[in-house]
Amino acid sequence: MEYAFTFEMKVRDYECDIQGIVNNAVYQNYLEHVRHEFLLESGIDFAALAAEQINLIVIRAEMDYKFPLRSGDTFWIGVNVVKSSRIKFDFLQDIYRSSDDKLIMKAKITGTAMNERGRPMIPDVLSNLMTD
Amino acid sequence: MEYAFTFEMKVRDYECDIQGIVNNAVYQNYLEHVRHEFLLESGIDFAALAAEQINLIVIRAEMDYKFPLRSGDTFWIGVNVVKSSRIKFDFLQDIYRSSDDKLIMKAKITGTAMNERGRPMIPDVLSNLMTD
Amino acid sequence: MEYAFTFEMKVRDYECDIQGIVNNAVYQNYLEHVRHEFLLESGIDFAALAAEQINLIVIRAEMDYKFPLRSGDTFWIGVNVVKSSRIKFDFLQDIYRSSDDKLIMKAKITGTAMNERGRPMIPDVLSNLMTD
Amino acid sequence: MEYAFTFEMKVRDYECDIQGIVNNAVYQNYLEHVRHEFLLESGIDFAALAAEQINLIVIRAEMDYKFPLRSGDTFWIGVNVVKSSRIKFDFLQDIYRSSDDKLIMKAKITGTAMNERGRPMIPDVLSNLMTD
Repeated sequence: MEYAFTFEMKVRDYECDIQGIVNNAVYQNYLEHVRHEFLLESGIDFAALAAEQINLIVIRAEMDYKFPLRSGDTFWIGVNVVKSSRIKFDFLQDIYRSSDDKLIMKAKITGTAMNERGRPMIPDVLSNLMTD
Repeated sequence: MEYAFTFEMKVRDYECDIQGIVNNAVYQNYLEHVRHEFLLESGIDFAALAAEQINLIVIRAEMDYKFPLRSGDTFWIGVNVVKSSRIKFDFLQDIYRSSDDKLIMKAKITGTAMNERGRPMIPDVLSNLMTD
Repeated sequence: MEYAFTFEMKVRDYECDIQGIVNNAVYQNYLEHVRHEFLLESGIDFAALAAEQINLIVIRAEMDYKFPLRSGDTFWIGVNVVKSSRIKFDFLQDIYRSSDDKLIMKAKITGTAMNERGRPMIPDVLSNLMTD
Repeated sequence: MEYAFTFEMKVRDYECDIQGIVNNAVYQNYLEHVRHEFLLESGIDFAALAAEQINLIVIRAEMDYKFPLRSGDTFWIGVNVVKSSRIKFDFLQDIYRSSDDKLIMKAKITGTAMNERGRPMIPDVLSNLMTD
């Protein structure tokens, strides 16, 4: 599969829980960080958007846990973003273990943007990133 | 709506992010804590299950973010658990702000259990909790 | 020992690490939450202080780890606040396991406040809390 | 100042709190991750030590907060380890902002190791790292 953006990270020990695997909630931290890096690389600056009173928000998250990451694992996340309605967009994010490209997670994070009047919309800077 | 279990919590300031609202990933921490409290109250002890080499694992999470929690908010989470296949069960978890019962999140967390031979199954202690 | 404020909490499983004990950094989360609850109960509202452009900040933390908390443990934190210089104050915070009052941690968190001109100071509302 | 080990990291947005700066407790996560990377690079494997029933534990943490990290900041951490008694060792860890080497934090994390009989000791592999 092809991705518009990929980013590599490494598990930190404090992210692992009693079972010795990365805690379920931590994957959402990983996904968020990579979305922000993706947007940043694409020239989308939250601060600037916020200054125009445009706020990006998550309205739904779907995550399929395929296989757990463990202490010491390096992994990479691939990202695409597609338009899912006139006012919504989906970040499609897959996590793979670096050593063997084993699939760890498939996620779909649905977002929208709120403009200065509290109306949902899609800012132009984001439309340009969409592969659909 | 009726729930098999409810549990009240309060937002901690370190759980809030730059926007002054609870970070998206933190809700999964809340949901996990309440599932564990629910199981504990129902006499299901992870340690004991693990000693029998039965591990409960999350295989899918779906979360609809309806409205954000903020610093200082108290909230409660209602839980039901239903059987979704021969080897899978769904925790249906809703989060409400305590002050006005405003709906904050609807979530469905799908799990299974792995027995000592690595086979997915539903332990009897869990079957007894299911409302379906 | 007598405390100006005490607060009870319970370990959440996601706060425990690979060794099955609460991760070292999590104690700082506990301490912060209890300081904020203490201040709130004392009528000190961060939002209101911030509106007056007074920011409370931590400048030093000392923590002695005496004994670890584990999954399922309930614990309580006792707090006192003393003036340590003309512009600094120390929160003295001790953590005890509830079941047997075993000492878990002794901590000293030193703070100051910055006024609207970026000058360190101690706001009057805080002076009133100090036991020294 | 010279360090036995240095490691660069970047602030993630979910690590920042309401004030837009990295939350106080998160620095301890950073420090721990870098200690583990340092030990790993030095051939010290927790798993192997644990298999010999030797557990490394933190007994005291001192942290001086000099200046806050913000969203987007890259920083590096320098580490030295010195023997502080027959059975204790100190990790001296300093955090600097990468863009201008501004000092962010000075920390001293004191640890010991427990052997298979619960006795504190310093394993030989660790003695070899010490600069004193």
